[in-house]
Amino acid sequence: MSTKGLDHSHYGGRLVELSLSYCLSWRLAVEVNNIQGWRTVPIQCLYDVEVYMLGGQYASDLNLIVDQISSYVDEIVMSEDGMDAWILDVDDTCLSNIFYYKGKRFGGDPYDPQAFKEWASRGIARAIPPILRLFQKLIDRGFKVFLISGRDETTFEQPTLHNLHFQGFFGFERLILRSETYKGQSGMVYKSEMRRKLVEEGYRIWGNVGDQWSDLHGQFVGNRTFKLPNPMYFVP
Amino acid sequence: MSTKGLDHSHYGGRLVELSLSYCLSWRLAVEVNNIQGWRTVPIQCLYDVEVYMLGGQYASDLNLIVDQISSYVDEIVMSEDGMDAWILDVDDTCLSNIFYYKGKRFGGDPYDPQAFKEWASRGIARAIPPILRLFQKLIDRGFKVFLISGRDETTFEQPTLHNLHFQGFFGFERLILRSETYKGQSGMVYKSEMRRKLVEEGYRIWGNVGDQWSDLHGQFVGNRTFKLPNPMYFVP
Repeated sequence: MSTKGLDHSHYGGRLVELSLSYCLSWRLAVEVNNIQGWRTVPIQCLYDVEVYMLGGQYASDLNLIVDQISSYVDEIVMSEDGMDAWILDVDDTCLSNIFYYKGKRFGGDPYDPQAFKEWASRGIARAIPPILRLFQKLIDRGFKVFLISGRDETTFEQPTLHNLHFQGFFGFERLILRSETYKGQSGMVYKSEMRRKLVEEGYRIWGNVGDQWSDLHGQFVGNRTFKLPNPMYFVP
Repeated sequence: MSTKGLDHSHYGGRLVELSLSYCLSWRLAVEVNNIQGWRTVPIQCLYDVEVYMLGGQYASDLNLIVDQISSYVDEIVMSEDGMDAWILDVDDTCLSNIFYYKGKRFGGDPYDPQAFKEWASRGIARAIPPILRLFQKLIDRGFKVFLISGRDETTFEQPTLHNLHFQGFFGFERLILRSETYKGQSGMVYKSEMRRKLVEEGYRIWGNVGDQWSDLHGQFVGNRTFKLPNPMYFVP
């Protein structure tokens, strides 16, 4: 190997290091909501996000969060009135779209509504294992679990229900999808409205779990909110 | 080297890897506020936090956030009335306590009020360079910058002012410290109260930057909030 070659690989190594450092910073900034409204993963971070999603760190992050949520659940003193409620988002909270996003360079390509519609209609997304575990625990403890999704009701009600059942999500109180009235509204406004209705029905929202800040911000967010990681896309 | 030795180092490597993965997950969970009320850094993450703080990633994270904040600042259309305001926290936002926490195992030891009092009274904390840069930009653009700190007014007013000036923070509108009235209140309640007063005075809070969620949650949080990383301690 020539000195030139060595220099080059050295330089390449330094670039990889810098890029890794930048992508770690980018992911952190996205996760804490310092960066908002982004449309695609920065091109220099495509590989980093792929490694994050598939290489074990995403799984590790989810496991630790679900452990935290479980400890919180254990501390809750339930009432006898059956109005203790919990909110879960669907996409990339209960069901993983990772196989779909694999074909979209893990967020490197912009949102493709038609392709996503086809994917979601097939109803073949996998459960996210630690969240399924949490879901089961919530059901067993007697929580009324509401799944609130931004998916369109007319198109997606049947495939989403099938997908959830097929993956083991049984016994939730309601799957709430976006009806005509809320079409075009931001996730934050629509989901706040859905939660408001539950609170007006008398439910106490103890916890709220989602992969987007728009699941967790706004009104009636619940006693505790938990943000799951998602460096692949942003929903306002 | 014996096979046994190889096995051992292999096993050790795997343990280090697992611990690294856990500590990455722990830091992420802390940063997004999924873990709250923690008193010390988990013992297996002391080294990870030290490497994070001193090894360059903390600096990289700060730089990227400040770049984001700067882009946001550039978009703000200022008024002529001089009431465009910005809020900065002090400890580990403007001034770094990293040298102090070096002596406290980077958060491995529980909060030590007496030792921290002695440190803060010396007024020798360093400016956090990217935040000083942001501060200067805000002043240059004509923002009224308010520094809101949970530090006790009676004890810390003079050393904090000296420290800030000595580190290059000139031209802020007010340094707001905790007066007797707010002693014992949580950071979130106290800081919300301070911001309420500013809003009642007619200020428009465009941005709010802090290293603790208690700086950024509550009331009158501002048009945009930005969370700086801090894996060393938690303030409620």
